[in-house]
Amino acid sequence: MDYATESLKKHYQWKGKLEIIAKVPVQTKEDLSLAYTPGVAQACLEIQKDVNKSYDLTGRQNIVAVITDGTAVLGLGDIGPEAGMPVMEGKCVLLKTFGGLDAFPICLRTKDPDEIVRTVSLIAGSFGGINLEDISAPRCFEIERRLKEICDIPVFHDDQHGTAIVAGAALMNAIKVVNKSMDAVKIVINGAGAAGISIARFLLQLGAKHITLVDRFGIVCEGESWMNPVQAEMAKITNLSHLHGPLAVAMKGADVFIGVSVGNIVSKDMVRSMNSDAIVFPLANPVPEISRDNALEAGAAVVGTGRSDLPNQINNLLVFPGIFKGALSVRARDINLPMMIAASKGIAEIVGDKLSATYILPAPFDPRVHEAVIKKVAEAARQSGVARI
Amino acid sequence: MDYATESLKKHYQWKGKLEIIAKVPVQTKEDLSLAYTPGVAQACLEIQKDVNKSYDLTGRQNIVAVITDGTAVLGLGDIGPEAGMPVMEGKCVLLKTFGGLDAFPICLRTKDPDEIVRTVSLIAGSFGGINLEDISAPRCFEIERRLKEICDIPVFHDDQHGTAIVAGAALMNAIKVVNKSMDAVKIVINGAGAAGISIARFLLQLGAKHITLVDRFGIVCEGESWMNPVQAEMAKITNLSHLHGPLAVAMKGADVFIGVSVGNIVSKDMVRSMNSDAIVFPLANPVPEISRDNALEAGAAVVGTGRSDLPNQINNLLVFPGIFKGALSVRARDINLPMMIAASKGIAEIVGDKLSATYILPAPFDPRVHEAVIKKVAEAARQSGVARI
Repeated sequence: MDYATESLKKHYQWKGKLEIIAKVPVQTKEDLSLAYTPGVAQACLEIQKDVNKSYDLTGRQNIVAVITDGTAVLGLGDIGPEAGMPVMEGKCVLLKTFGGLDAFPICLRTKDPDEIVRTVSLIAGSFGGINLEDISAPRCFEIERRLKEICDIPVFHDDQHGTAIVAGAALMNAIKVVNKSMDAVKIVINGAGAAGISIARFLLQLGAKHITLVDRFGIVCEGESWMNPVQAEMAKITNLSHLHGPLAVAMKGADVFIGVSVGNIVSKDMVRSMNSDAIVFPLANPVPEISRDNALEAGAAVVGTGRSDLPNQINNLLVFPGIFKGALSVRARDINLPMMIAASKGIAEIVGDKLSATYILPAPFDPRVHEAVIKKVAEAARQSGVARI
Repeated sequence: MDYATESLKKHYQWKGKLEIIAKVPVQTKEDLSLAYTPGVAQACLEIQKDVNKSYDLTGRQNIVAVITDGTAVLGLGDIGPEAGMPVMEGKCVLLKTFGGLDAFPICLRTKDPDEIVRTVSLIAGSFGGINLEDISAPRCFEIERRLKEICDIPVFHDDQHGTAIVAGAALMNAIKVVNKSMDAVKIVINGAGAAGISIARFLLQLGAKHITLVDRFGIVCEGESWMNPVQAEMAKITNLSHLHGPLAVAMKGADVFIGVSVGNIVSKDMVRSMNSDAIVFPLANPVPEISRDNALEAGAAVVGTGRSDLPNQINNLLVFPGIFKGALSVRARDINLPMMIAASKGIAEIVGDKLSATYILPAPFDPRVHEAVIKKVAEAARQSGVARI
């Protein structure tokens, strides 16, 4: 099927992929007096007395805002807020379908981090959580960090953490397949933007010790002049052997390759230069850094991609509906590291004893995944002290 | 029924009066490729090329934001953004039920007009229209004016204009009942806040010549020191006979009383001091400025109130769903005066030859009203040049 043409046709028919419906009747004067004036005043007064009652008396307890500035939409780049909306609506559809959440898309007409932070913080009282989406790096790091400090509800940049959590789950299982250990494997991450940096940080938390980040100008290494401040910070905690140079240098002898960059930039020779039983996750979509077939031919033991038509799809749809639903189910103030680790382990565990080189992750349509993530995340929120109930 | 208790109980059961549903399936890989990646990119690119395509390819064409800062919620005053939410949700339910609109409530955590204007303008690209709600006077005038200048979508403060449009419709018909004319009647409006000032301005546009505004400190008159800047401006175009003093002074010899103030502040003697065939609209709710019975006993010819249990309910529910639906149906850039006048006349005309002292307005549950307002407003938008289609 020609997805581009067919999808555009569908979008013209749909005229929006979401609908807001009224859950309560207003067909009689009595209905009106209960759902609206004068009766509604009582609910207002209850919340005025205790603002936490807004979770009991309004839809806030189940509403997530999906917010973008349109600067890094899919692989399309900075296409503007309105043009990002079809993706945001799609994200909301997924949050509803797999997480049971009411999700509403908001596109911001500014690229200024200060304005984005201020705007989101001012509307946060209407929501139970904020999903930041498709905001370009390195701005996204600062925006998320500041919003997490200011807001009393979870703020989660899915392009960073969703990808990291699922890649982490995939890696935990792939390492089992090849009988290696997280603290021993040498990991190369190609792409030092939102996803790559977040994956690196998360794998460090999962126990990885040897990570090398690579961006378009080469290996992220202390002293390189092309790095942005976030990359410079990462250079201090990764690449402990101080490698310089292009991707090929980093890949030599590595156990794991994770690509969050662009298609067709990894050769078979580069995979051949890796350690035995190599794990290769070329996640660029729709064209991976190296095709699954080529990676396998070059000796990779486990291959995972972003593609839905191949085994081992590494798709953040596995995590974002459940992590938000889990967080909101306990009215969490934050989505913190313990919750992310719990989600990652929950996803990995679903595979169970069916684990193999071609089955390291469950399918995103498997309802067990979302149930498991919701449960694990809620537990972790309670244990880490960010749950309100 | 004890509406307060019953409504609170219902609000605890409802946990929000709105739900956001997915209109499109995402149960298979193919569904996902059409509603989300990779297919969705095509819709994004179309909007990037022509931002007006966001009306064709996203839900924007039917979405209204209901926005408050929580400073003037119902008669409760400044109760804060979260506490205003039950009213905003109720408003959205009414916009859906009577206007078929997808309406989403947003409560802002700021009272600063600059911040409110900036925040709303930055999120405006996600909506087809903005309904400002329960923002206190005189801040609401400036906020609305500035937003109308900045935004390319309709911005409408219902507490001002909704009330004015319906009061205008009621007055047009009441004047017919008593065989007077708009340009000749002496009109007293008690309450010089958002509603009162907007009613005064709108009636001037409908042809009224003799309006006197009264606020808690007395008649709005040039030179009074207690007036805010908006009241001072109104003093220049109302109260042409330069009356000073309390409400009773203004009412003597008046043909029309419109109250948007507080209960029980108009005596029977004050109504008796009015001209013969007096029209009395005590709109304070739930306790009117004078009860309908007392007004009739004191000689009023036509009485309209805000109460749903009495004849002639003057309720802005008659207009706000239809005026937004009419505006959005032609992708209007604004809700302007010609559209408001068209709405007002449309509401008044529905009454037809059934017009009498106890039937000057249709009931808000009469579906013909909303249909008529939608049609008239869309026509007026086209004729006044603010329609995009």
